[in-house]
Amino acid sequence: MLRGHDLLQVQEPVAYGGSGLNYAQAAAITRRIARGDTSIAHLIGYHYAQTRIAPLFGTPEQAAEQSRRNAEGKLFWGGVQNPRGGSDIVLTRDGDGFRLNGRRSFASGASLGGQLSVTATYDGELVFVSLPAGREGFRALEDWDNIGQRLTDSGGVVFDNVRVERSEILGDDPLTGRTPSPYQTLVTPHWQLAFVNFYIGTAEGAFEEALDWTRLYAAPWETSGVEQATDDAYILQAVGELQSEIRAAALLADRAGQSLQAALDIGPSLTAEQRAEAAIAIYEAKYLTTKVSLAVASRLFEIQGARATTSVYGFDRHWRNLRTHTVHDPVAYKAREVGDWTLNRRAPEFSLYR
Amino acid sequence: MLRGHDLLQVQEPVAYGGSGLNYAQAAAITRRIARGDTSIAHLIGYHYAQTRIAPLFGTPEQAAEQSRRNAEGKLFWGGVQNPRGGSDIVLTRDGDGFRLNGRRSFASGASLGGQLSVTATYDGELVFVSLPAGREGFRALEDWDNIGQRLTDSGGVVFDNVRVERSEILGDDPLTGRTPSPYQTLVTPHWQLAFVNFYIGTAEGAFEEALDWTRLYAAPWETSGVEQATDDAYILQAVGELQSEIRAAALLADRAGQSLQAALDIGPSLTAEQRAEAAIAIYEAKYLTTKVSLAVASRLFEIQGARATTSVYGFDRHWRNLRTHTVHDPVAYKAREVGDWTLNRRAPEFSLYR
Amino acid sequence: MLRGHDLLQVQEPVAYGGSGLNYAQAAAITRRIARGDTSIAHLIGYHYAQTRIAPLFGTPEQAAEQSRRNAEGKLFWGGVQNPRGGSDIVLTRDGDGFRLNGRRSFASGASLGGQLSVTATYDGELVFVSLPAGREGFRALEDWDNIGQRLTDSGGVVFDNVRVERSEILGDDPLTGRTPSPYQTLVTPHWQLAFVNFYIGTAEGAFEEALDWTRLYAAPWETSGVEQATDDAYILQAVGELQSEIRAAALLADRAGQSLQAALDIGPSLTAEQRAEAAIAIYEAKYLTTKVSLAVASRLFEIQGARATTSVYGFDRHWRNLRTHTVHDPVAYKAREVGDWTLNRRAPEFSLYR
Amino acid sequence: MLRGHDLLQVQEPVAYGGSGLNYAQAAAITRRIARGDTSIAHLIGYHYAQTRIAPLFGTPEQAAEQSRRNAEGKLFWGGVQNPRGGSDIVLTRDGDGFRLNGRRSFASGASLGGQLSVTATYDGELVFVSLPAGREGFRALEDWDNIGQRLTDSGGVVFDNVRVERSEILGDDPLTGRTPSPYQTLVTPHWQLAFVNFYIGTAEGAFEEALDWTRLYAAPWETSGVEQATDDAYILQAVGELQSEIRAAALLADRAGQSLQAALDIGPSLTAEQRAEAAIAIYEAKYLTTKVSLAVASRLFEIQGARATTSVYGFDRHWRNLRTHTVHDPVAYKAREVGDWTLNRRAPEFSLYR
Repeated sequence: MLRGHDLLQVQEPVAYGGSGLNYAQAAAITRRIARGDTSIAHLIGYHYAQTRIAPLFGTPEQAAEQSRRNAEGKLFWGGVQNPRGGSDIVLTRDGDGFRLNGRRSFASGASLGGQLSVTATYDGELVFVSLPAGREGFRALEDWDNIGQRLTDSGGVVFDNVRVERSEILGDDPLTGRTPSPYQTLVTPHWQLAFVNFYIGTAEGAFEEALDWTRLYAAPWETSGVEQATDDAYILQAVGELQSEIRAAALLADRAGQSLQAALDIGPSLTAEQRAEAAIAIYEAKYLTTKVSLAVASRLFEIQGARATTSVYGFDRHWRNLRTHTVHDPVAYKAREVGDWTLNRRAPEFSLYR
Repeated sequence: MLRGHDLLQVQEPVAYGGSGLNYAQAAAITRRIARGDTSIAHLIGYHYAQTRIAPLFGTPEQAAEQSRRNAEGKLFWGGVQNPRGGSDIVLTRDGDGFRLNGRRSFASGASLGGQLSVTATYDGELVFVSLPAGREGFRALEDWDNIGQRLTDSGGVVFDNVRVERSEILGDDPLTGRTPSPYQTLVTPHWQLAFVNFYIGTAEGAFEEALDWTRLYAAPWETSGVEQATDDAYILQAVGELQSEIRAAALLADRAGQSLQAALDIGPSLTAEQRAEAAIAIYEAKYLTTKVSLAVASRLFEIQGARATTSVYGFDRHWRNLRTHTVHDPVAYKAREVGDWTLNRRAPEFSLYR
Repeated sequence: MLRGHDLLQVQEPVAYGGSGLNYAQAAAITRRIARGDTSIAHLIGYHYAQTRIAPLFGTPEQAAEQSRRNAEGKLFWGGVQNPRGGSDIVLTRDGDGFRLNGRRSFASGASLGGQLSVTATYDGELVFVSLPAGREGFRALEDWDNIGQRLTDSGGVVFDNVRVERSEILGDDPLTGRTPSPYQTLVTPHWQLAFVNFYIGTAEGAFEEALDWTRLYAAPWETSGVEQATDDAYILQAVGELQSEIRAAALLADRAGQSLQAALDIGPSLTAEQRAEAAIAIYEAKYLTTKVSLAVASRLFEIQGARATTSVYGFDRHWRNLRTHTVHDPVAYKAREVGDWTLNRRAPEFSLYR
Repeated sequence: MLRGHDLLQVQEPVAYGGSGLNYAQAAAITRRIARGDTSIAHLIGYHYAQTRIAPLFGTPEQAAEQSRRNAEGKLFWGGVQNPRGGSDIVLTRDGDGFRLNGRRSFASGASLGGQLSVTATYDGELVFVSLPAGREGFRALEDWDNIGQRLTDSGGVVFDNVRVERSEILGDDPLTGRTPSPYQTLVTPHWQLAFVNFYIGTAEGAFEEALDWTRLYAAPWETSGVEQATDDAYILQAVGELQSEIRAAALLADRAGQSLQAALDIGPSLTAEQRAEAAIAIYEAKYLTTKVSLAVASRLFEIQGARATTSVYGFDRHWRNLRTHTVHDPVAYKAREVGDWTLNRRAPEFSLYR
């Protein structure tokens, strides 16, 4: 579907057949898609982030080559990154090539994608590997059965002695233990910005859907003193409050995208301070979009009333989707990281979550 | 199951084979059951309320007769009361008997129960009818398919010219349009107290379940600085906050039960003011248990973390159950009724919701 | 002071000696001032709004003349508008001129300003009058003694047969009962945007002040496990949460300013729909800045700890200032107006509050 | 005043001239007084706690002697305990007696009381000293000038080589470094229960006062559609919500008092587990009464409207009083302690705050 709509390659250069959008623009697409379907937004948001890894960690040649192939083949990238709940994935040398071994519990889209973006460790150092999904020894467990984001197939994967070529490991000399530069550590904010956008996009879509339903079906309460539910004092107040909260959170998400893009536009000379500014802008938005989107998804029923709980409408899916993904990493720590920067100018230490 | 545990007839006199519990005690049982299963608590809570209708509206003989039969037969009562979303059910005279016609959208347990407690109108006046469920012309639509309370079978029912005997209409001379006495209007607080108890009981059970899971499975966060998730500063804070909120809401629910029981113990001489006191005590608890139980059911995931969203645990069912029932009637109006009493000593006007 | 800083005439054309800023830019100045002192921001914010009344309601000549005099004389405008709590102010004909009679309870800056912007009724219709403050029969009661905004002198005023010339009544033919155009009704959003900006500016300033204090003086808690209060897990979380909330509310306030400015830039052809869009953008921000700024002003003490309650610091002034002004008009109705527009496309009916 | 009302000695035995109330009953008096005046409730609440120190730490003779003197003399006790922000107070031997040296920043009522309850360290161990206030070398700095609790005179004190007799040091052999028993460590919950009660009592009193004012003075809003502010939909909702919250928090405070009293009634054989149960019951109430009372004190203005901000009413004093005392010790840590007990059965480690 995403392929049919030419959405997969929008970030690639026009010369290669893409649309030449920057990452902030891609994130805006993620948000728009989330208004209709959070699971698809999740997949496309991750995909947009995965395809930015080669420009960050690869050689210029690797980045250009991937970009060309993405645009031509309309490739879909799954990711094997989330280190939670899995043993590590280890890269070891094997003759003129390498081998990957290990498993992960959460790998979004890894069973759907033709391409895999994998984080692994080599001699204890983080390396990024790009490879086609069908390689021997790789297996998606297809065990994702969660209360939300059900279409994302974010289940476990296993690498059992999977062969990796040198050229599939991103970077010039990635195996000599260089610390990633501030510019490269922007990798994590990419994912987090995707989350921010599918949270707030989901809230926007859920809200619009609930208002449409309310206009058509909601019944006035017996002591409301009004003829239409849409004139109810408490319903109007709730709508106004949620509208304000959603709008503000969306503006914060916009600012987060602009901040990351500004950092990307600086390029490899990005300072640690500039990296922190971009990351923190996103983590501010992560905190607020989490809070607001969950509140919206739950309070909608107070606007719509009892009949909106009928299963056929599926209005509970919004809360389930949001509740599932918003515990990806604990938001209390995002608030803490924002606080530590605000109070102490202490930047988040880089990890795949920060 | 409830029959097997001898739970159905606990309110009936010991002389008849019941346990002689009062309504506040029955409500406490509802809460205990809700800790394990909200749907069953919903059914038993309604059952306990339905079987109190005969003592309120029936003649002493009708009440005693029902009580005896409830105890002996361990009868289960379904209810056809909730006037939301349905046309009215009308009782008309037919020879020496009567006929019921109409439909309702929400009727908890009406397809499960051997006995039905039905509210209808006769010449525009509210009457209560008790009859066995299998009577010709009655049909449960079995169309309950909602996001929560899935086992309660709270779907629609149809009465198509159902024959009713005079003795099945509660009251001495119920057909001459008497306004219900304050004592009789306690009927509504009975249902609302049942809600209060299955909300808070559900929250208590969900919380305990989440803590058990957390002790066994939760993983510490990478920057928490602790070895065990159970030592995490933010998790401990969340547990403490929710514990305090749950306890306070439960105490308010206890007080609500005592207030209703005190009013019941006064009996038919109950004044309008005393009725209001009892009702408002319950509506205070309705507001708070709604708010607290929804917050608990959503925040549990912040304590447990990402892995708790796996479907096999079904931890989302608590939020779905609570979200479904807490829009039964809009809680903003319960807050308003409490406010109107507190500020203006204006009592809630009796209806099947107030 | 404001005069000394050349802040009073920033909106007037450069040709007259002003800075040619538009209203959105003036509102941004109000916000910056509020970071330092809410009372002064209140006065300047109102002043900026009052001086926009002539362009809305006056003839081009009246507007140009006022603008020129404002710039040259660095005039300060007080306002006699807030209709709450006062009897009406009535304009009546008296020979070739007019007379003003009546009183108002709240009139911000009216005792300080050389110029007065007054709303009155003439034959039941709203008219705007501009006149110098010293005119015979006008009296500021200097009775403002409130828990916040103490320097604003927002007390009562009396007009006792105050002479008004025809040229001091704004408009071509203001006395023939024309309904104000949508463009003219932008007058109310001007004031409301001023409020939005001094709320969020106050929150920003209070937050910065509290963080500075915390860095210098806050003591670590005995069981925090850290050496510095600035490393405390709960303090960092609170700082991060408030930072996110403040930023989002400030972005919403920015958007509000842009929306009003866009409407002003359209000019007299503004449609009712466009007026509503601008007004609602501001009321969204009014709701959120009210909520966020009050929360910030209260939670600061949780960051700073017990010693910050010492009177010498005066940290309670922020809450007192905000609490005082945020009840100017009830924010629940602003949420309702936003809801009514969002759900029903029903525009706020014009008044001096909407 | 308190002396005139015979309130100081209510806990002493009837035989000595007291009223023989237990501590839970004394705490209820503190709450009732707080409804009228938080500062006085603060003083009496501390006094009730200070006079319970001799029964916990003194010999039976010391306790009986103090009790007799309290009842006869209607003595008022100030406290020098709060270790925050001060250097330690050290007890050293001096011939056949002892000397106290040091200072404290916060000492409630120490300048008002005839009697002082002082915590000090002797050889690094905590000891409790009871002595008359006028002793040479003791000085109250009378430097309390805070935004709230202004009458409590909770300022600093200095001990400059103050002579102490052996009999004024509580306990049999207090100077040999015995760890306090679980029963003795109930000393801290005594103070915390006093706080709980003056928080919720203050909220109750502020709420009642605001409702009275609202009935008399509040004006209906222009678009409320009602003639009286007391019929406003949003005001009624706010009143109802706050009423529910206050009631629940008060019930939790009642339970806290009962829990402490139950522990006291067990006496010196109290186990560590039983001590924890009592302490945690109080800390649950501390968390909730803090949250609820602050919300009440701030939201009252939303019920009353703009005119309630006039200084003459002083309605801001409630928020200032509560804000000042609720940072006595950070409530986040109380939530944490409740969480740690609930999740891990880990009891709060004894200190003068836990």
